[in-house]
Amino acid sequence: MFEYRLIKECNKTRARVGVLSTPHGEIVTPVFMPVGTQATVKGVFPESLKEMGVQIILSNTYHLYLRPGMEIVEKAGGLHKFMNWNRPILTDSGGYQVFSLSEKRKISEEGVVFASHIDGSKHIFTPGKAIEIQNALGADIIMVLDECIPYPATHEYAKKSTDRTLRWAQQCKEAHQQWDKQALFGIVQGGMYADLRIDCAKRLTEMNFPGYALGGLSVGEPKELLYEMIEATEPYLPQNKPRYLMGVGSLDCLLEGTLRGIDMFDCVMQTRMARNGAAFSKGKRIHLRNAKYSEDFLPIDQECDCYVCKHYTRAYLRHLVKANEMLASMLISYHNIYYTVRLMEGLKQAILEERTQEYVDKYFCLTNVAK
Amino acid sequence: MFEYRLIKECNKTRARVGVLSTPHGEIVTPVFMPVGTQATVKGVFPESLKEMGVQIILSNTYHLYLRPGMEIVEKAGGLHKFMNWNRPILTDSGGYQVFSLSEKRKISEEGVVFASHIDGSKHIFTPGKAIEIQNALGADIIMVLDECIPYPATHEYAKKSTDRTLRWAQQCKEAHQQWDKQALFGIVQGGMYADLRIDCAKRLTEMNFPGYALGGLSVGEPKELLYEMIEATEPYLPQNKPRYLMGVGSLDCLLEGTLRGIDMFDCVMQTRMARNGAAFSKGKRIHLRNAKYSEDFLPIDQECDCYVCKHYTRAYLRHLVKANEMLASMLISYHNIYYTVRLMEGLKQAILEERTQEYVDKYFCLTNVAK
Repeated sequence: MFEYRLIKECNKTRARVGVLSTPHGEIVTPVFMPVGTQATVKGVFPESLKEMGVQIILSNTYHLYLRPGMEIVEKAGGLHKFMNWNRPILTDSGGYQVFSLSEKRKISEEGVVFASHIDGSKHIFTPGKAIEIQNALGADIIMVLDECIPYPATHEYAKKSTDRTLRWAQQCKEAHQQWDKQALFGIVQGGMYADLRIDCAKRLTEMNFPGYALGGLSVGEPKELLYEMIEATEPYLPQNKPRYLMGVGSLDCLLEGTLRGIDMFDCVMQTRMARNGAAFSKGKRIHLRNAKYSEDFLPIDQECDCYVCKHYTRAYLRHLVKANEMLASMLISYHNIYYTVRLMEGLKQAILEERTQEYVDKYFCLTNVAK
Repeated sequence: MFEYRLIKECNKTRARVGVLSTPHGEIVTPVFMPVGTQATVKGVFPESLKEMGVQIILSNTYHLYLRPGMEIVEKAGGLHKFMNWNRPILTDSGGYQVFSLSEKRKISEEGVVFASHIDGSKHIFTPGKAIEIQNALGADIIMVLDECIPYPATHEYAKKSTDRTLRWAQQCKEAHQQWDKQALFGIVQGGMYADLRIDCAKRLTEMNFPGYALGGLSVGEPKELLYEMIEATEPYLPQNKPRYLMGVGSLDCLLEGTLRGIDMFDCVMQTRMARNGAAFSKGKRIHLRNAKYSEDFLPIDQECDCYVCKHYTRAYLRHLVKANEMLASMLISYHNIYYTVRLMEGLKQAILEERTQEYVDKYFCLTNVAK
């Protein structure tokens, strides 16, 4: 059911194009996955996502476990049916949100005990529990439980945590019941230490997962360090498996990540910035709340051919943002996701046509001009 | 450009079917007009409104005047272009919102002075100003400035106010510049006094407007009194002109109003209740926040063939409502407007086929069964 076919490797960079088969269809990589935290990509109809060419979305196990609960999603016939999305879904393990959102969390060899950010109720996520929940949700790709190491962390702490994450990965593998329906990806941790990441990548590879993620990045470190960690780890990941850089999705990082051999990305940025009135234009962000757009009757981006840029002006969007109208978030989220998907489609095409670096250079040239 | 053709009169009730021609297309009446207060029907794409069969929307002059301002809408090429809606639009005069939303309002023969609910800034709406703004906005149907008489009011106050509203109507008529592009409707006031409403209807009719509204109703009075006022006034309105019952749009009132000779209705209820998690089902409201829907995998309404009822369950919608997700308002607003539009389409068909009362009886039977 799951297969990753490498279609093309760039001969100048590490970039590659591949096809990942899942029970809900094929995903052409490199791919950006919009985030539907609570079983909905905020402010966007599933049909709109399809219209834009979104191939796969991500949803958060931590959130769905707390609300509405895995039993309800399971009774609904699984997450795809529950949320009316019949293309592939990836769920994370819940680990990241436990560390970033919950209260009074306590980590031990067994797992992590935490209090819900909604009602303070006490819960435990063990490797087995993380898999049990994800089995019930039924996403096409699921993730092992891991600890997202805070930045900065000592080498000692990072090593201890990474070793535990590796033991959890093994336990998750053993707990996973439906390999034909759901691919379980391993996660490389190791903090900002190349030696730990390399060691983790090697040991995970030995466990033979159908895909590998880089976790614990984009947690506050400089971008150079993020790129350095990808470069250090990538050679130790198998070529014939997809690589997923978790939680990364700014436009420059999507390009830089792909250049370094990453296939999959996810980020909440596209919809979050939309809710704050910020939109992608010429590769950068513009803040539509700004007074200078009040009589600007141009589209968000003159080159963009999305529904929003075809029909709405910056002046109208600014009005909606200022008036706190829902349609502002709806329209800008649409544009931002579309813009990101198009960037990645262009990148894929560039890789196929041996002009990867030119494509990336053109993007950075555009953003510099727009400064 | 404006013409109202009476297609069919029910031979048992006062209900009728007509076609109103406007510069942006024909409207078949009886018609429900969703409200787009700030140049957007909250949470609904214009394309969705078209998909549902919405023929005309209403927008509020008071809101647009304060934000973004009539100059911006005018520079954008008018309200239709600004908000990406190329079907007919009706704007109210702003009078109602001045009385219900603004602060420190003071009414005189000249007009009404008020402070903006947004920033407290001072403004005046005179009959001339109300027309000037509406001419700039460019809606197909515009309204005279009137005073919405509070309920209850003395006969003396209601008479004094209605006389002033009539003088304002005359001034609006004189101020209106573009009769070929915008039809100006008169508004019958008179409080809850049949004699005043009849007198007002007669005097307005003498002024020969292309359409007539009943204003100052649904302001807290019992429904019987609302129906009584319609029944008293309607015989004094010309048969060959459309009649519009302002601010009324509950399902029962749409039916009862049509039975009494009303052609046009508007209401914010459909989208406002959606934002509170309430949806139309079997002619009544259900509150999707309620725990009993947590594992209810039926659609909102089993007879409804809208996009939402085809693809989403009450359990999913309840989850979205509880999780404060924007998609809840988007989906429920869609359903509520669709449901209302279908009710009116069915009513229109029933009038054409001489089974008006049966159609209305069936609706009330349904709502009683569902109790």
